[in-house]
Amino acid sequence: MIPFLYQCTTCGKLYQRDEVRYLCPDCAKHYRPGIPLVGVLLAQFDYVAIRRRLKKGNPDWSLFSAVEEQHYPPYPFGHTPFFPVAALGKALGFENVWLKNDGLNPSASLKDRASFLVVAEANRLKEPSIVTASTGNAASALAAVCAAAGKQAIIFVPESAPRAKLVQMLLYGARVIPVRGTYDDAFRLSLEYTARKGGLNRNTAYHPLTIEGKKTVGLEIYQQNGFKVPDVILVPVGDGVIISAVFKAFCDLKAAGLINRLPRLVCVQAERSAAIHHYIRSGKYQDAKRPDTIADSISVSVPSNAHLARKAVLESRGFSLTVSDQEILRGQKTLADKTGVFAEPAAAATVAALKKLRRSELLGRKEQIVLLITGHGLKDVEAAMKSIRIPRSIEPTIDAL
Amino acid sequence: MIPFLYQCTTCGKLYQRDEVRYLCPDCAKHYRPGIPLVGVLLAQFDYVAIRRRLKKGNPDWSLFSAVEEQHYPPYPFGHTPFFPVAALGKALGFENVWLKNDGLNPSASLKDRASFLVVAEANRLKEPSIVTASTGNAASALAAVCAAAGKQAIIFVPESAPRAKLVQMLLYGARVIPVRGTYDDAFRLSLEYTARKGGLNRNTAYHPLTIEGKKTVGLEIYQQNGFKVPDVILVPVGDGVIISAVFKAFCDLKAAGLINRLPRLVCVQAERSAAIHHYIRSGKYQDAKRPDTIADSISVSVPSNAHLARKAVLESRGFSLTVSDQEILRGQKTLADKTGVFAEPAAAATVAALKKLRRSELLGRKEQIVLLITGHGLKDVEAAMKSIRIPRSIEPTIDAL
Repeated sequence: MIPFLYQCTTCGKLYQRDEVRYLCPDCAKHYRPGIPLVGVLLAQFDYVAIRRRLKKGNPDWSLFSAVEEQHYPPYPFGHTPFFPVAALGKALGFENVWLKNDGLNPSASLKDRASFLVVAEANRLKEPSIVTASTGNAASALAAVCAAAGKQAIIFVPESAPRAKLVQMLLYGARVIPVRGTYDDAFRLSLEYTARKGGLNRNTAYHPLTIEGKKTVGLEIYQQNGFKVPDVILVPVGDGVIISAVFKAFCDLKAAGLINRLPRLVCVQAERSAAIHHYIRSGKYQDAKRPDTIADSISVSVPSNAHLARKAVLESRGFSLTVSDQEILRGQKTLADKTGVFAEPAAAATVAALKKLRRSELLGRKEQIVLLITGHGLKDVEAAMKSIRIPRSIEPTIDAL
Repeated sequence: MIPFLYQCTTCGKLYQRDEVRYLCPDCAKHYRPGIPLVGVLLAQFDYVAIRRRLKKGNPDWSLFSAVEEQHYPPYPFGHTPFFPVAALGKALGFENVWLKNDGLNPSASLKDRASFLVVAEANRLKEPSIVTASTGNAASALAAVCAAAGKQAIIFVPESAPRAKLVQMLLYGARVIPVRGTYDDAFRLSLEYTARKGGLNRNTAYHPLTIEGKKTVGLEIYQQNGFKVPDVILVPVGDGVIISAVFKAFCDLKAAGLINRLPRLVCVQAERSAAIHHYIRSGKYQDAKRPDTIADSISVSVPSNAHLARKAVLESRGFSLTVSDQEILRGQKTLADKTGVFAEPAAAATVAALKKLRRSELLGRKEQIVLLITGHGLKDVEAAMKSIRIPRSIEPTIDAL
């Protein structure tokens, strides 16, 4: 493995790997539950060493990993399909649209990537239990990876989480604590829990390896795209960690000399859970009051990684937009109709966004546009039911047709 | 592509590719809905030509494909994880247990493989619509691939199919006809439908390319296993097509000179849907009267491919067994607990079977045993709910814990 240091994204200070665990200690003094995280750490590798060891055409991605392979749990993830969807592109007025279908991870969302790396870190640290708050996907991913690794997952989840996600985590053997409150309440409770009772806290962005784990989706897109940088990537955004992680992937590739430009990152939020969108637009942060969207995975009042998400969009020369629940549901149906991919509402928000951008000058018709599909539609069948009607049954005779 | 002929599995007669479409015309005279299919066709390739063109270490699987690549729909499938599960093996008393997790196909079941190839064939034949009967998985797979290919799927499904599967196929834009009856009623109706109204009939085994499509799972297992033949593969069996297809894969590899032995194939059926099991045991075929199992994907009264499934088990020197619904549900929980894989009940039947075989002499403790996971658990959350209890919600304070 290539050595790395943690760097604070707020003050820039560097730390040895085992000197810190979650946030930058200096900046964490200014953090309290209820505001976006400050002092989020990013792993900074010895990129000169990486460059020296890289092979062209068949790069060894473990060079970009912040945990040694010997600690990896037996949980194959990633390597999900990346492919062009001409019919969808045509329907939306673009010529070169691609999907990265990360709903085909084992627990059916991109979150397997983060959970995998944090559980690997727990193996390294010999921590038997891992704690998280989640709207559902991160929790079911953590529960799944913990099951494979023989560890205990302890999960705080808003009681409104879709039932399929609850069933998943319970079946995997996690200890699940449904909370009468929002994701933000669950987030706060999980921090209090590890402070009092110990265990490794996997909260997204709070544990720096969640960003490192999720960045593998960016590395895969680059590889599967024939080692080329796509022009634009549309990312559904809740707490802002996935978009920051995609940004980190391409920053790592650039620092290692593999690429010389970044893809433009487009932040897609639900209209009624749009704190990061407004922060990007105005430069002033404000919580999303009473977030409410059918896209439960991106329903967040206080996005933990707001600062880094904003930076990812601005530094990649991207932009941000919002979509309504109606648009999301229509996007889900269009995606299924045109590609055979059944995505959960949060992921379908990218399709809704692309529809909205049809006549905008923000995207070129011929640009290579990637939609990041972050979760499988089977995670939330209730939502999909709003777009369809189950037909009446018939008697089993051809004449009944 | 390598040329192939269709061979009738009942009378042995050979046909040119475009001479026949479904069953052997001679034998089909003896077929009527309500009995297992007779005259099922198998594609027989020019194996000498394949052998000549094969490269060691990196075989070109398209040599074994019965449809030209130019007709393939834009629907990436397969390449699902194959990996050892030491903790599960240990819990069940075996040392070398592996999973092939085909629930991670795009529509969340192995059936994508068959639908892919039949839709490719429809492209070749310029057929705009494809008809099938299904307990749910084949239908949602067909609907998904048809969406990607711009074709119309017409689906007959028992009204008791799990809702998630119905929602899937409707969202993909299929025409769905729920039937007040069993899978067998739906099968018969779909045959009458294509006879009267046309369209390509994708019924499993009835269309010979369903077996060819599904065989890709066997080819992948061989490749992912480092080009070695596993000792044993446990396959959940409903109508008997998947087990026949796994058999066909290894027969093709043997005919092409890549391997010199077959894996032993173990037929796993639900106690109350066990027509093939009894047929294998007794040599006498009898329908499963009123099939009833929580494993809806393998709930079949008249298994269409009974004859070939029996042959696959006997010629591979395998065997057959049944498991109860209780055992299936416990198997599903054990699998999730020990591996992080959430499988649908039919797939979990293989875990239940392995549990039962712990003290049997039919399997060696050290043999390499593969469990074929045919579908994702998210397809049927209701079933999984029987194994877990959703905990009570708490107020969002640490003291409420």
